[in-house]
Amino acid sequence: MAGVVDAKLAELGITVPAAAAPLANYIGYNVVGKLVVVSGQIPLVDGKIAVTGKVGGAVSIEQGQHAARICFVNLLAQLKAATGGDLDRVKRVVRLGGFIASGADFTQHAMVMNGASDMAVAVFGEKGKHARTTIGVPALPGDAAVEVEGMFELE
Amino acid sequence: MAGVVDAKLAELGITVPAAAAPLANYIGYNVVGKLVVVSGQIPLVDGKIAVTGKVGGAVSIEQGQHAARICFVNLLAQLKAATGGDLDRVKRVVRLGGFIASGADFTQHAMVMNGASDMAVAVFGEKGKHARTTIGVPALPGDAAVEVEGMFELE
Amino acid sequence: MAGVVDAKLAELGITVPAAAAPLANYIGYNVVGKLVVVSGQIPLVDGKIAVTGKVGGAVSIEQGQHAARICFVNLLAQLKAATGGDLDRVKRVVRLGGFIASGADFTQHAMVMNGASDMAVAVFGEKGKHARTTIGVPALPGDAAVEVEGMFELE
Repeated sequence: MAGVVDAKLAELGITVPAAAAPLANYIGYNVVGKLVVVSGQIPLVDGKIAVTGKVGGAVSIEQGQHAARICFVNLLAQLKAATGGDLDRVKRVVRLGGFIASGADFTQHAMVMNGASDMAVAVFGEKGKHARTTIGVPALPGDAAVEVEGMFELE
Repeated sequence: MAGVVDAKLAELGITVPAAAAPLANYIGYNVVGKLVVVSGQIPLVDGKIAVTGKVGGAVSIEQGQHAARICFVNLLAQLKAATGGDLDRVKRVVRLGGFIASGADFTQHAMVMNGASDMAVAVFGEKGKHARTTIGVPALPGDAAVEVEGMFELE
Repeated sequence: MAGVVDAKLAELGITVPAAAAPLANYIGYNVVGKLVVVSGQIPLVDGKIAVTGKVGGAVSIEQGQHAARICFVNLLAQLKAATGGDLDRVKRVVRLGGFIASGADFTQHAMVMNGASDMAVAVFGEKGKHARTTIGVPALPGDAAVEVEGMFELE
């Protein structure tokens, strides 16, 4: 039987991939008590970074939002691994941290990060309302345009 | 009856505003067990960012410290909402994260962040002593000069 | 009797210094329940920053990895203070956050941060496998090349 969150994902047309394999001596998430701490996710699709460059430069705000959405889907992939596949065990999206690769004159970081935040609430409803910190950065691993990390609470 | 922390705020002449309303699909804080995770705060005063630009550029270190203090007051506003108005329920300022908008040649980030750290200890005393991470960033949402996020423990 | 982790540190030739004294109104770590939240550490050795400048500029990737290793040793110093000297009480390296001072065209942040991640696993084995977020920053306090923060779980 599909869960409530799985049904919502299907309705939204969101496919959650398998969690990306770790590339080094770190892992996708750790669970401490009821907290799940998930590693920063870049907009990887099938092993390739889908959106590279600087938002406000070669990357538009819309493309940045798209990148933030992919990052959130990749957070979901880790969360699915952390919950044994049952996303209904997620009690709360506690916090998202958003990192927007952009220049010193860019100031629309919040709008870019809304790509991830809007998806969190679309998928989890009230449980998806999260604390958030969004900042600009000069560059990200692999020239990713956006990186998003997450902290979640389980039932 | 005013609480201990409220009395200290009055003594210091600090007025804590109402918590800023969320501008998007995120919220000012989340509570997990006894932890309060508060969203990154920019130096908003009456809905306008009081200090914009880069510290070490158009913004002096003193102005940056002023911005950091406003960010901390805005963290207090969220914390007040999280505690039902009773800041005496705060057991510990666990961690502050400080983001200083500045250039590649700026190195005095710690001095800027002391604006927030000094106020944490002025307001909460020993309970205000926190772990801290301070970094430079090229720019922040809305061109804010400083952003500060916080994690707090409740009694 | 030396603990398991102390024996591993000796085998690896790693000397953990005394935890650096706080330079301002913040402290090296805070403990909340079984979580230890450790302040961002820069590559201080005997009170001086051992590696300054930008990785990918004057600082090579290898030197950046060296800086990340020193940051991790300084995290261990704080953790030793938090555990009363008994690092065997560490159940898990929950999360490392890595900040790499570098320019807009640098993209090898993950490789630099592996200096810290590899040491975490060398020292703690399976318990050292952590969630991780790595980003570029324009500059760090004191012109440090790398800063690493950590979250740990105690037994």
